[in-house]
Amino acid sequence: MAFTFQINNELQFNHDEELLKKAEECCPEIKKETKKALHLVKLIQDQTQLDGIGTSILEKDIDQLSDYHLKRDDSLILDFGNHYVGSFSVDLDQVGSPMDAPLYIRLKFAEMPCELNAESQDYDGWLSRSWIQEEFIHIDELPYTLKLPRRYSFRYVEIKVIDTSPKWQVVIKNPTLITETSADYSRLEPLSLEDKTLQKIYDVGLKTLADCMQDVFEDGPKRDRRLWLGDLRLQALANYSTFDQCELVKRCLYLFAGMTAENNKISANVFVKPKPLPDDTFLYEYSLFFISTLYDYNKAHPDLAFVKELYPIAKKQMDVTLKMFTEEGKFIPDEDYPVFVDWSNAFNKDTAGHAETIYVLKQFISLSHLVEDEDEHIYTKALNQLSNYAKEHLFNKEKHLFVTGENEYNIASQVWMVLAHVMDDETNKKIMNNTIEQLFPIKNIATPYMYHHIVEALFEAHLDKEAIALMKKYWGKMIELGADTFWEAFDPDRVSYSPYGSPIVNSYCHAWSCTPVYLIKKYILNSK
Amino acid sequence: MAFTFQINNELQFNHDEELLKKAEECCPEIKKETKKALHLVKLIQDQTQLDGIGTSILEKDIDQLSDYHLKRDDSLILDFGNHYVGSFSVDLDQVGSPMDAPLYIRLKFAEMPCELNAESQDYDGWLSRSWIQEEFIHIDELPYTLKLPRRYSFRYVEIKVIDTSPKWQVVIKNPTLITETSADYSRLEPLSLEDKTLQKIYDVGLKTLADCMQDVFEDGPKRDRRLWLGDLRLQALANYSTFDQCELVKRCLYLFAGMTAENNKISANVFVKPKPLPDDTFLYEYSLFFISTLYDYNKAHPDLAFVKELYPIAKKQMDVTLKMFTEEGKFIPDEDYPVFVDWSNAFNKDTAGHAETIYVLKQFISLSHLVEDEDEHIYTKALNQLSNYAKEHLFNKEKHLFVTGENEYNIASQVWMVLAHVMDDETNKKIMNNTIEQLFPIKNIATPYMYHHIVEALFEAHLDKEAIALMKKYWGKMIELGADTFWEAFDPDRVSYSPYGSPIVNSYCHAWSCTPVYLIKKYILNSK
Repeated sequence: MAFTFQINNELQFNHDEELLKKAEECCPEIKKETKKALHLVKLIQDQTQLDGIGTSILEKDIDQLSDYHLKRDDSLILDFGNHYVGSFSVDLDQVGSPMDAPLYIRLKFAEMPCELNAESQDYDGWLSRSWIQEEFIHIDELPYTLKLPRRYSFRYVEIKVIDTSPKWQVVIKNPTLITETSADYSRLEPLSLEDKTLQKIYDVGLKTLADCMQDVFEDGPKRDRRLWLGDLRLQALANYSTFDQCELVKRCLYLFAGMTAENNKISANVFVKPKPLPDDTFLYEYSLFFISTLYDYNKAHPDLAFVKELYPIAKKQMDVTLKMFTEEGKFIPDEDYPVFVDWSNAFNKDTAGHAETIYVLKQFISLSHLVEDEDEHIYTKALNQLSNYAKEHLFNKEKHLFVTGENEYNIASQVWMVLAHVMDDETNKKIMNNTIEQLFPIKNIATPYMYHHIVEALFEAHLDKEAIALMKKYWGKMIELGADTFWEAFDPDRVSYSPYGSPIVNSYCHAWSCTPVYLIKKYILNSK
Repeated sequence: MAFTFQINNELQFNHDEELLKKAEECCPEIKKETKKALHLVKLIQDQTQLDGIGTSILEKDIDQLSDYHLKRDDSLILDFGNHYVGSFSVDLDQVGSPMDAPLYIRLKFAEMPCELNAESQDYDGWLSRSWIQEEFIHIDELPYTLKLPRRYSFRYVEIKVIDTSPKWQVVIKNPTLITETSADYSRLEPLSLEDKTLQKIYDVGLKTLADCMQDVFEDGPKRDRRLWLGDLRLQALANYSTFDQCELVKRCLYLFAGMTAENNKISANVFVKPKPLPDDTFLYEYSLFFISTLYDYNKAHPDLAFVKELYPIAKKQMDVTLKMFTEEGKFIPDEDYPVFVDWSNAFNKDTAGHAETIYVLKQFISLSHLVEDEDEHIYTKALNQLSNYAKEHLFNKEKHLFVTGENEYNIASQVWMVLAHVMDDETNKKIMNNTIEQLFPIKNIATPYMYHHIVEALFEAHLDKEAIALMKKYWGKMIELGADTFWEAFDPDRVSYSPYGSPIVNSYCHAWSCTPVYLIKKYILNSK
């Protein structure tokens, strides 16, 4: 997820200190590791790479870094060889006459080379400029070890000398990255796939997940560095397939459960620094996915006590949601509580929202049964109403596709109805085949989040070949374009598309794009 | 002094650890005092002020500062009411939705309002941009107390919000300045002058001196924050008339004495951080003024042991200098060891340099006598040669003015010959009267350093009225234009003149302009 603009200043929230204390107790250790820069590189034009910008290794080896004597306007690009999250330090010294003016330098941290090709003053998007990973630093005395206090998400660091004086030059030594992640690689079982493309997609997905695992599951470590509930659901699934650090999932669920709004809704995202704080943004299925994430947790790590503890919160989400359906089982959308599905607002989301509700309602009934809730029958009845409405009013038996809005047939409706298993397996397969035939090629979908659900629906409809082909086409294309980690947004038809108008605020390591690790494990290797 | 461009990379220096240890022992305490911002102001067009930029106090009182909720591109200007040197801190908080992006702010520190009117990206001068007092800061979590680690020289602070997010705004509280100076105001005797203009000139000069008194006598606390020998000579004289902190002068003399070049010359300036280091810049009379400063010190605070300790270094300067004169007593200038006199290179400086040598030689002979140097006669002889050459070959008996270069008659030659008392008092008066009549109005002189010597020469020639008038015209004009402290450079004919092309790197508190405190005490009040 990323940024939305709901502002609800008047909203009050409950703070359940007991649940928040448990969230705190599940706080993971941040593992740190020292990495040295591997290469000195320069930017080059390379049409095979994202935005046409690649890198080329300089003749001088990183061991010869201090041979460079940098004066006004000189710069160097350091390449750490892979994407990392962490802090940066560097030793700075000078040669020439005594230092008769401060040193003024600019540091730019980039996940992808194209970010270094953009100038921050040219950025004019709606997303805050404050996300641009760029620092301007004065140093009054050299030698000096510059330890930047902030955390960055990067592979490349450009150090530009804004000024020294005409009498001396800067020398850069010992650029160092201290990585930060809560991902525990010692828990990983090595995975070796025969298909090298899938192996690469798995590896890059794993790195994406790991770099987003901090003291919560962050959406993206460059931006917004925040825990979103819809993103958490996918991260948790990817996590069970890989690092399987269940305490971190528990922590995140406690955080959402501990801070519900007075109307019982769970925020789409929460902040944890300096202290836990829910955002005033609410998204229809993001609240609902609290149930889904709890359900998935219990499936991966059965824990009745934990389910019982959070079940009341889950139930309130379902109750809020069901009020948005008519007696007949028809979904009445509320623009103040929007269905997300995907960033694109170019398609109607009512049927997809309807399907998401059925998807989660089934999981909720399972939890309800588990905790022996005497109200279970209420939800079973609701499921029938919603399912029947879908079958009778939304499913076009001739087209074998679900309609939405004003006679609109879109991919999202089919995908979520298939994921919700509203129809039988045979019909689902037919729906997805029809989707491929009639609604593909996919257009105007720019998020790996939506692509994940399309691929998963293909797998659920037993169209494995098509699912794998789409996964390779989409995630594989990012790798071809130079991805070390998967991106927040990617439209294969418009590879340079940025939702924000500039690559410098794009997040090139975004957790909701890591799901191939889960899809490969579940549907290709049939494990977990 | 400021910036020059000699580069002598191959130069070796002696380091006399004993003298440097004594310098360290004389290191003054830096006094700190907390100041609160007095006003919120905005910049206004005001043709009576420097560069046509003044300030106007905002309607909201500083107590209502936190009523301002700042969003992207909003800014505020804080006015501390006077010029200070020190560090800055401010409490930052936010209102609105939770903080969903870092805060990115810019802080500009300005001695004069016109600096705030200039944009740093427009600066294209030869002086290092690193002197621009501007910081860009990211803050990831609010509330936060921002304590900037560097020292600034300022009266005004502009805080500009580069970005928050559309969902929240910044609140600024408690802007605080912790002053830094080694000037001890408890040592000052209050001075009350009947002439209010002179009183104001004295007060502003005193503040200028105080703000340049740090762990050495700095030339300017904004830029270059460095100990220059020619500037020290004037600061020491002003100091004896005011704070009279003799240890600080001693410390500075020890620093120069402790680090002479292998050819025995004393650098024009030294650095003290992170450790004492002489610059590779040498100026003819700056080296020579070591003698002058030692002489003046002993006059203010007789100390034979100290004179004896530094006399050998002083003698080496004089010996180096006298080698630059012919047997006849003619000065042979060396472009690698230039005579400074003033920044302007629009006039010939040979005769001024000749006169400066006589001025210092007289002081040296006095020291020589004091320490009972058996070589005293050598210097007496040299003095005769130099004086005779000046009288016979440089003084035009008809014009009653000294010539220089190719038949050039300039102010600097007359001023320094009068200060050196090469001629008798009556002739000196005639020379200065001729200077006023024939060479005034002063043109193309932009430094208070040179104006000081002109005024002092007028006093020495007993033209007190003219001296006071010039002092009022020059230093008084800076006050009219808004000076809280006197400036590094000022040409009354071109008030917006900057040697660097922009006010943002000008130093508006520069020690060599503080000398009216000395001139008023010595020549008007006839004390010290």
